[in-house]
Amino acid sequence: MDAQITACFVRDIRFPTSLDLHGSDAMNRQPDYSCSFVQLKTDSEYEGNGFTFTVGRGNEIVCCAVEALSKLVIGTKVKDILDDFASFWRRLTSEDQMRWIGPEKGVIHLATAAIVNALWDIWAKIEGKPLWKLLTDMEPEKLVSTIDFRYIYDVLTPDEAIEILKEMQRDKSKREKYIFKEGYPAYTTSCGWLGYPDEKIRQLCKEAITKGFTQFKVKVGSNIDDDIRRCHIIREEIGPEKILMTDANQKWEVQESIEWMKKLAVFKPVWIEEPTSPDDVLGHSTISKALKPYNVGVATGEQCQNRVLFKQFLQMEAMQFCQIDACRLGGVNENLAVILMAAKFDVPVCPHAGGVGLCELVQHLSIFDYISVSGKLRVLEYVDHLHEHFKEPVIIRNGNYQVPLNPGYSAEMKEESLNQYEYPKGSKWQELFAGGFLKQD
Amino acid sequence: MDAQITACFVRDIRFPTSLDLHGSDAMNRQPDYSCSFVQLKTDSEYEGNGFTFTVGRGNEIVCCAVEALSKLVIGTKVKDILDDFASFWRRLTSEDQMRWIGPEKGVIHLATAAIVNALWDIWAKIEGKPLWKLLTDMEPEKLVSTIDFRYIYDVLTPDEAIEILKEMQRDKSKREKYIFKEGYPAYTTSCGWLGYPDEKIRQLCKEAITKGFTQFKVKVGSNIDDDIRRCHIIREEIGPEKILMTDANQKWEVQESIEWMKKLAVFKPVWIEEPTSPDDVLGHSTISKALKPYNVGVATGEQCQNRVLFKQFLQMEAMQFCQIDACRLGGVNENLAVILMAAKFDVPVCPHAGGVGLCELVQHLSIFDYISVSGKLRVLEYVDHLHEHFKEPVIIRNGNYQVPLNPGYSAEMKEESLNQYEYPKGSKWQELFAGGFLKQD
Repeated sequence: MDAQITACFVRDIRFPTSLDLHGSDAMNRQPDYSCSFVQLKTDSEYEGNGFTFTVGRGNEIVCCAVEALSKLVIGTKVKDILDDFASFWRRLTSEDQMRWIGPEKGVIHLATAAIVNALWDIWAKIEGKPLWKLLTDMEPEKLVSTIDFRYIYDVLTPDEAIEILKEMQRDKSKREKYIFKEGYPAYTTSCGWLGYPDEKIRQLCKEAITKGFTQFKVKVGSNIDDDIRRCHIIREEIGPEKILMTDANQKWEVQESIEWMKKLAVFKPVWIEEPTSPDDVLGHSTISKALKPYNVGVATGEQCQNRVLFKQFLQMEAMQFCQIDACRLGGVNENLAVILMAAKFDVPVCPHAGGVGLCELVQHLSIFDYISVSGKLRVLEYVDHLHEHFKEPVIIRNGNYQVPLNPGYSAEMKEESLNQYEYPKGSKWQELFAGGFLKQD
Repeated sequence: MDAQITACFVRDIRFPTSLDLHGSDAMNRQPDYSCSFVQLKTDSEYEGNGFTFTVGRGNEIVCCAVEALSKLVIGTKVKDILDDFASFWRRLTSEDQMRWIGPEKGVIHLATAAIVNALWDIWAKIEGKPLWKLLTDMEPEKLVSTIDFRYIYDVLTPDEAIEILKEMQRDKSKREKYIFKEGYPAYTTSCGWLGYPDEKIRQLCKEAITKGFTQFKVKVGSNIDDDIRRCHIIREEIGPEKILMTDANQKWEVQESIEWMKKLAVFKPVWIEEPTSPDDVLGHSTISKALKPYNVGVATGEQCQNRVLFKQFLQMEAMQFCQIDACRLGGVNENLAVILMAAKFDVPVCPHAGGVGLCELVQHLSIFDYISVSGKLRVLEYVDHLHEHFKEPVIIRNGNYQVPLNPGYSAEMKEESLNQYEYPKGSKWQELFAGGFLKQD
């Protein structure tokens, strides 16, 4: 705890996923899954890793923002940060001059997440616990002291947050045992990317069922006839009982969302994810009301910029499923705020994952939510890409996330992967440029 | 019009305003007023200038984002952009990979504004008109074709926008004549910065009255007793009839805003500006309702990230004064969308200005609003800093902006100023570093 942070390195890591249309949807047609990868060095044996996820171009801008923010971290004692984490978080997000270019949103907030996640990784390593265990073992008062409540006091006070946590202390160990045995339920998004041909979708559904998955998400929104055909294929493969989700990735207008989903309601999706602008709380509220009679809920959050937006989504009954993101929000601290607000409004937290390493991170938050906050098992996204680049990749068995055991936030990437995929100088990128497969920006 | 854009240069320009506490408020205690200054070169005689405003640190991140976006502009024919400006604007704001790090907010959107503003500057220069005149002379259909209506169709369709403009065609020339003669009403923010001592406030009020100002804004929010004292001083100086506005720069929680302003209501402020988070539409709606009996309106917008937020502020009656910003929104196109939405909801547009060059830009938008959209004179912020660095600085006479006459968007800075204040290599900064007055980041 006496360690001091001595350096902050950030690396622009990109994977050429656009070559295979992995991750393609109505809005992100050719993503190169990427991350701004942060390494916090200390004068002790502990090193913190954290990152934020992007989809390619622009990742260098986030790295630039990490550089700017790193000046607020370097030279600080770990103890001083952890003793009053909420204040330190405020110092990062409300730096006197940099706040202007957010505030608390977009590039500067993604960069904040990368650094803050690395700080939690250090903390968990110092305590010798996986992050979820650090969180579930922490005294409610201490945990709540890490949250900056600015702008959310009108729906959640620190006292209320402590109350929520205290109420769930009782059966914590029972739930911990359960989760060790059964794991945390996952749904798969890997079958239904928009760029995949029908036969590939069919094949991937079969494989997912064999692996034990019972919940499936399909991308929709570019063409209604295609969507009907693809939903039909998936329902044929998974049968009428298994769970189907749909995801439009912000493709529609408000009224269009309603009309479109009325046509897909026959396939019984439990939710439509991101029907329209992630900023349109009122629009999502209108869509929620209109689709309620069809038993289609609204899910959103992966591009929900901060706790203030989540607050309003909850207040206006504009989301029936709360999709926190480990990196879009300002790291663990702000995710805790949103998880606690969702609990107060009794809205299930079903995190966004996939991308690069989002599964590795967010599994910790879902396990914490189950053990310490909601006491209920929700469902956590799973995408089977790029896990091989992590030192402690997630483990899925029979459609369930297995509890991570190593100290930290599971955020460390392999040195070899970092060297190969650093953009643009990494060896894999140099090969792709030389072979004419991709062009350097 | 056949010109092609051949290069895009961006310069990190900062002014050391923190040395004098110019621009200090409850949230921005020591700003160094700055801008990311863009020069678009073409293969013709026309060059476009545009910029976005920041308050110092972090300006380099916005410059980095401009560099990334500039690749979408370089090599394009001006004609191809202007023939279908809405599509080009969409291409910038929804670039397949970069959209992720916004979308349409924060750093990437500020950078978009700088480039888009420079494109409008070129357009106005090609037509040989000041921007406001380019806009007011344009056929309604053409003007509306520059707007991307994505996510706002539920409150404003292109046809409705054309209708609003057509209805105001009739007396346009009468209003143009009027504005040439009288100018556009300004209010001054220069008297009431939070860092100023009482005597300076008193003195500045006296001077402003002598200059013909009748509307005054004071910063509040750090300490209620200070605020009462400062409001009292200003009312003493300006008398009971002149107009007073208050500005909290996001300092408060929702309930706190209401309680605080009840105590200041006795000074009869027409509005409280930015009481809380700029993202909290529902919060502003609550505050608006609570303060209505006290005749205090709510003003916000300078950090309102995009048209989707403005849409909701208008839908939920959460703003009684709509403060567009020429650089926070994605340039002229998105400002047109917001001005037209505000007209539909009959909410006055009273732009944010000040900073670096915001007065120079936004005067064009207010004049357009008056002549072509609302037909009403509102009030436009004025701060008397840093105008000397512009080739065509705003002219204020008797508390009114005088109509700008030169072709373009008044965005060009003096080459000498650019060289002196480029950060960190400019001569002024080198002097400050050498003298120990400021430290380089």
